[in-house]
Amino acid sequence: MDLKDVQLRTKWETENGVFIAESWNVIERAREAGYSPISFLVSEQWARKGAERLQTLADPDTPIYVLPEEDTTHITGFRVHRGAMALMERTPLPAPSSLLKPSSTVAVLEGLVDHTNVGAIFRSAAALGIDAVFISPDCADPLYRRSVRVSMGAVFQVPWTRLVKYPDPQLFTAYGFTTWALTPHGDAKLGETTRPRRLALIVGSEGPGLSPKALTSADCRITIPMSHDVDSLNVAQAAAIAFWATRQ
Amino acid sequence: MDLKDVQLRTKWETENGVFIAESWNVIERAREAGYSPISFLVSEQWARKGAERLQTLADPDTPIYVLPEEDTTHITGFRVHRGAMALMERTPLPAPSSLLKPSSTVAVLEGLVDHTNVGAIFRSAAALGIDAVFISPDCADPLYRRSVRVSMGAVFQVPWTRLVKYPDPQLFTAYGFTTWALTPHGDAKLGETTRPRRLALIVGSEGPGLSPKALTSADCRITIPMSHDVDSLNVAQAAAIAFWATRQ
Repeated sequence: MDLKDVQLRTKWETENGVFIAESWNVIERAREAGYSPISFLVSEQWARKGAERLQTLADPDTPIYVLPEEDTTHITGFRVHRGAMALMERTPLPAPSSLLKPSSTVAVLEGLVDHTNVGAIFRSAAALGIDAVFISPDCADPLYRRSVRVSMGAVFQVPWTRLVKYPDPQLFTAYGFTTWALTPHGDAKLGETTRPRRLALIVGSEGPGLSPKALTSADCRITIPMSHDVDSLNVAQAAAIAFWATRQ
Repeated sequence: MDLKDVQLRTKWETENGVFIAESWNVIERAREAGYSPISFLVSEQWARKGAERLQTLADPDTPIYVLPEEDTTHITGFRVHRGAMALMERTPLPAPSSLLKPSSTVAVLEGLVDHTNVGAIFRSAAALGIDAVFISPDCADPLYRRSVRVSMGAVFQVPWTRLVKYPDPQLFTAYGFTTWALTPHGDAKLGETTRPRRLALIVGSEGPGLSPKALTSADCRITIPMSHDVDSLNVAQAAAIAFWATRQ
């Protein structure tokens, strides 16, 4: 497989139940979150410098591939950040109900294609007390390398799962959640609407916006009031504002 | 000059009082904002397809270079977006006082190095009613290609200038502004502090955070309260929240 092909890699990683963790810190956080390494790829330089750390992170029988830096760069198509990468095993995704039961505020990400936005939203979610994140079947992978990095590891911290059925308003209603769809053309304004006790905030991709079925099935379509001539915010900024405005 | 070298181009563009506008829409918005094109670089295909638009945007004596697409890609190092690029002339930056006089809320960006963050902050500033943006001497260029694109043209919409002296608390005080420095370790909390009538919000780069002199010279150091274990938000998200929380 060509590791340099993002699309191919994203597909291959999820289908095979693995993901790539890059840098000692990320590998460490992934381990703490319960993910196990399958193998390591380390540059010669970092195998020496990080020998002790490597021993803590790898189990005795985990293969560790040590290569000159030019080879790790050649294989991966980028400079292996801080010298270490690990192939990690995904854990089964939690059942939506198990995430909803203990939560007050959750986010639902619909069809985001940009890993940077996914990572940024997880980072804000962790900082602003979102209890769990649900992603639509076609949403970009939170465990993809760039999502992980931009999230500053928050993808290992905030519980999340991928919805198989989407949209599924009954699921949220069943657990007492009111769903708010964030859209530039809503019927209520953020900051002027009292949040329900249990809230699911739905945000969608920038170009097309939320799907009609997500909009119509939500309990409320909510808008961030904006200045004249501006029709939208970047989805990561909009989500951060919504998380902040609905905090408890 | 090698157009593919970002650092070199950034420096060359600002020193020579020019910038590059990419795509018909951006060129159009730049023209509307009072910038004049010096020359155009258009692929053969788009010179045909966009002939009418090109005539509207170019003055009769503006040079238009038409090249096969492989050549425009080779010269610039990227696929010229929607077939058109223009070298535009910068206008003199406005005096800070002229921006402060009519404003209620302004943003000050200190030392941001990431053009994506600069662009994203301008986009939020436009959407959330920030009257003007001030950038520190070492802040990344709002007119750099990536800033412009990420801002969705907001860099042409929100008045801005680069400060020569920085920090310059007296400047803001002289016009009745209270300065708030956004920092993870502040002495007041956003959302629990009443905004002053005229407010200057100072945000800084992520890694090092705001400089000690910016922090000590600000009237107030303000913090976005965050959940346990999270020490910071991305600067573009933090700015968006601060713009929202202090809106009038």
